[in-house]
Amino acid sequence: MTTGRGEFALIARHFTRPTRRAVLGVGDDCALLALEPGMQLAVSSDMLVEGRHFVSTVAPERLGHKALAVNLSDLAACGATPLAFTLALALPRADEAWCAGLARGMFALADAHGIELIGGDTTAGPLNLCITVFGQVPPGQALLRSGARVGDTVWVSGRLGDARLALEAFRGSVALDREAFERTRQAMERPQPRVALGLALRGVASAAIDLSDGLVGDLGHVLARSHIGARIELQALPRSTDLSAQPTAVQQECLLAGGDDYELLFMAAADASEQVLAAGAKAGVAVSAIGRIEAAPGLRVVDGGGRMLDALPRGFDHFSP
Amino acid sequence: MTTGRGEFALIARHFTRPTRRAVLGVGDDCALLALEPGMQLAVSSDMLVEGRHFVSTVAPERLGHKALAVNLSDLAACGATPLAFTLALALPRADEAWCAGLARGMFALADAHGIELIGGDTTAGPLNLCITVFGQVPPGQALLRSGARVGDTVWVSGRLGDARLALEAFRGSVALDREAFERTRQAMERPQPRVALGLALRGVASAAIDLSDGLVGDLGHVLARSHIGARIELQALPRSTDLSAQPTAVQQECLLAGGDDYELLFMAAADASEQVLAAGAKAGVAVSAIGRIEAAPGLRVVDGGGRMLDALPRGFDHFSP
Repeated sequence: MTTGRGEFALIARHFTRPTRRAVLGVGDDCALLALEPGMQLAVSSDMLVEGRHFVSTVAPERLGHKALAVNLSDLAACGATPLAFTLALALPRADEAWCAGLARGMFALADAHGIELIGGDTTAGPLNLCITVFGQVPPGQALLRSGARVGDTVWVSGRLGDARLALEAFRGSVALDREAFERTRQAMERPQPRVALGLALRGVASAAIDLSDGLVGDLGHVLARSHIGARIELQALPRSTDLSAQPTAVQQECLLAGGDDYELLFMAAADASEQVLAAGAKAGVAVSAIGRIEAAPGLRVVDGGGRMLDALPRGFDHFSP
Repeated sequence: MTTGRGEFALIARHFTRPTRRAVLGVGDDCALLALEPGMQLAVSSDMLVEGRHFVSTVAPERLGHKALAVNLSDLAACGATPLAFTLALALPRADEAWCAGLARGMFALADAHGIELIGGDTTAGPLNLCITVFGQVPPGQALLRSGARVGDTVWVSGRLGDARLALEAFRGSVALDREAFERTRQAMERPQPRVALGLALRGVASAAIDLSDGLVGDLGHVLARSHIGARIELQALPRSTDLSAQPTAVQQECLLAGGDDYELLFMAAADASEQVLAAGAKAGVAVSAIGRIEAAPGLRVVDGGGRMLDALPRGFDHFSP
């Protein structure tokens, strides 16, 4: 880790807190972390760029929350117990109030999950946050994208599409009243990583992924990895009353290609429904059966009248315009 | 980890290789890594921004090398054995040739150290590379910044100042002939992380840090952590003949505040010189005694005539102009 003078002071003021679990935290060349005996390390890294992953006007508290939340969501999808994280931050300038807000939002979520910041880097540059999270999981128990089997039920946690609906309202392409806008904006800016659900699904789910790029795209990753197909019932996709009030085309786009949902998409054997529902209840998160894994490759989405959708909206691509 | 369509293909083409050591590599929500039993995890993260840490015209191979090298240098400073790394990358556009070059430079260094890329992220945005490296170290054996004691000898590996000299030549503030420019440019663009030396110094050095921001700044971090001072002999600072040929003021600036040296600065008991020299010989790296730790706080640099320098150049600050 690199620490110049101004940035060193900035780090000390906003991002250095006493370590509880780590052997050595912020302030040396490396951080040191001890896993529980026999556990494997689970690692995920996500980079958030201004104008691509968040708007420049976002409140720093919300950005701090979201930057950590999207990383915890990856640990959740693996069924790993979160331990710690690092933060690398490029800032256009050393803005005290902004850093304080970012730290506040980030640490509130970190505290809620009992994890701590153990290191990182700060530099001048176009606004960019790169968080790497560390978790632990017993050998062989991690939930992977590759385990889905023909006949498995496809499940999803929470509700889909609200984050995308808020984005469309920001863009002015849909109209929402003030309360609906605030509700959906919460979904966009303050996603809740499904860590407890991921843990409860160890030994229950056959495969899992977190929904960051939209259902079609992310389910596509699972299908490709597992060399199978799926049939999804459009009507079964869980949605808010705010989204239900939108025209069908908007609903379909938000549900299927929404992005930024940070819910868990997972598969489990057809006779494991009770266990899945129990896992959801234990984690305090609604879980909905939305379809089935089939042998025929490809994704088929069927509407309420039993008609298959001709064209599916694409998943989010960071290099598309 | 987030994987849209275009970026997914880009990752697959350039950054996915079969894993050897990791339990699970690139392509799932998390990577899984098993440490050897009883070992602690050492983690470091560095972010490199165009225009700040590298010039836009740098060859991508060299950038790939350097981005990983500066992170491995942090592991070296802790005496940790490198295991793996993640790469998060923001790119202005999906440039195939550039990514191929970056991967080539990065993997060549990774292979030289027997480590592998286990995950990361790719997104569009202003050019930014964030690497997080993972290593392992036996409990209690990590080299820290905080262990220096009064009477310890201060040591440095390799030679100082060439990277800064090359930077000044790029800036046009010093003149170098073609061969000298190429030699010093190697120091700037292809630093060699002192991993073997860090391992050999376990149990020998009392404290260590890697030199990324310049001797004055980085030694300052050690002194602050250890609550002590130091006296450094300017003439003892190891330098190339290219730097020796420069005026005194240039030499002092490059040696004391150079930045980007990526050598190890470390302390060891005065009676441990034989062991330090043996560690250097084992690692194949020159080590030079450059001063002594003293009880009086602060850093004193003494020139060849025994005169103390009045003002010391500042360490590199990422938020200074």
